[in-house]
Formats: sequence, structure tokens, C-alpha cells
Amino acid sequence: MRFTDLADQPCSISRSLAVLGERWTLVILKQAFAGTRRFDDFVRTTGISRGRLATRLSELVDHGILERVDYKDTRTRSEYRLTPRGHDVYPILMALRAWGDEHLAPDGPPLGYVHSDCGGGVAVQLVCDRCGEPLDARAVTVVEGPGLAAFGDGG
Amino acid sequence: MRFTDLADQPCSISRSLAVLGERWTLVILKQAFAGTRRFDDFVRTTGISRGRLATRLSELVDHGILERVDYKDTRTRSEYRLTPRGHDVYPILMALRAWGDEHLAPDGPPLGYVHSDCGGGVAVQLVCDRCGEPLDARAVTVVEGPGLAAFGDGG
Repeated sequence: MRFTDLADQPCSISRSLAVLGERWTLVILKQAFAGTRRFDDFVRTTGISRGRLATRLSELVDHGILERVDYKDTRTRSEYRLTPRGHDVYPILMALRAWGDEHLAPDGPPLGYVHSDCGGGVAVQLVCDRCGEPLDARAVTVVEGPGLAAFGDGG
Repeated sequence: MRFTDLADQPCSISRSLAVLGERWTLVILKQAFAGTRRFDDFVRTTGISRGRLATRLSELVDHGILERVDYKDTRTRSEYRLTPRGHDVYPILMALRAWGDEHLAPDGPPLGYVHSDCGGGVAVQLVCDRCGEPLDARAVTVVEGPGLAAFGDGG
């Protein structure tokens, strides 16, 4: 099976990875949240090659995660801005950050992500949406969802 | 810059992606959370090629995310089990799932992740660890952390 075939699996983790799980894609999105919008600025701030960046940006636009907006400089250039669907990627980045801060930052977190209003830290929490209890994998059962039947029908 | 060079960046998102952001790595870990432990079972349940799986499992063991445990069958075989560091990857997978359920599941979520005790759903929340307010990217400011000074010192 090819990696892109994950898009057709009856699993939202696999489907998300088919869209977001290529090398550099989440690095580009991280930089978009940091305010980067222009091609040359993505190259400078991420270290990605120009050819690969062009491919990744095109994919992200196709998937509705970034939108391309042309503007006039000395010639017409493009900016890439997060769409609402792109903004929803933020918890994924914060979960990656939390794991890296915990396991890959022996000198402490290199950057702090803080609540602008009060200076507190950003915590990523898994909680039950019914009883509010904090959850980890051991407290979770995987069951069939409505989309599985549709998948079985060839949907 | 090579993708693996992200491991040395002063950014926990980049560092995590250097470890977890290769194609298939998070698919393998998703399957480990589903209870898969043996090489052939990873091949069967993920569709990854055997050569690529061997590489990825070896990397995950090197990074302390999976541990390799030998057991006797008709010959000696290995199982791969999540370490505590591996268990901490779960929120990343749940954030990917939430995004996929929201944006890539037109027929509804293919699978439900529910609290075993009460049947509620697993919600991924970003909250301020001081005031408890729900946060999104617009409410967050990025500041220097203690690990940045160490990085600047060549640490």
C-alpha cells in the first residue's frame, strides 16, 4: 500500500496523516501559525528546499488548508494563509510541542507558548466530553462509528 | 537543510517531527495503541512494506518509543511494545483523529474513541494551565523558553 492510500482507510488518524503526514508539511504549517506567508519567507524560516516547498504548498492549497492570495509587489506574488480548516491543525502542533518539550528538551522548552491574557501555559488535555474525566489510552475503547458502515457500503 | 536536521532546531514541534514525522511512523504507533506487537501483524494491519517497517521499528526503538522484547515461538521472535515515552504520543494521535473526524469524514467518524467507563467521547482540548480558559492560536503568544538560552550557548 502506498502512503497516499491511507486517505481511503476507515480511520481518521490514517486519513489525516495522508494529508498532513508528509515530511515538512507540519513544519510549514507551524511556520504559517508563526505568521509566515510568503514563499521566500517559508524557505528562510524552515530550511526546506524550494522545489519541495512548492509541492507542499500546492498540496496544502488543494486540501483547503492554506489559501493562496495574490498581491502586487514589483510583480504579482502570492501569499499563503491558513483557512479555518488550517487553523484547526493547531491542536496537532500543540500536542507535538508538548511531547517534544517533555522528551526532547533536556535544557527545558526552547519556546514557551503562553496564554496572552494571563501568561499561563498551553496545556493539551484529553478529557471525556460527557463526564469530564481526564483520559489516557488505557481509559479509551475504540468502537464502530457511523462512517464505518458507509465505508463498508463502498462509500 | 535535511529533514532529520530538525532534531537540532530550537523548537519542540520541529524536534518531535524529526522523530515522529517520517511517513508511516505515526501509523505504526497508532497500530501499537490498538494492540499490535508483532512484525507480521504490523505489516498486515498497516499495509507498510516489510523493509520500511523494519527501518521504522528500529528508529522507534532507538528513540525509546517502542521497546523490543524477544519471545520464543518455534524460533525466537520479537515483539514491540510502547514505552512510557511511547504512551505519551497518544494525544498527538487523538489530535490527528479529531481533525480527520472533522474534516475528512463526510459520512461521520469511521471509528469512535469513547471513555470506557461512561461511553463519552474523547475530546482534545487546549486550555490555559493557569486560568483554565479554552485557547486557540489567536490567544497564544510565543516567548523564549529556558532551553533557548542553552541552545544559544551551543547546548
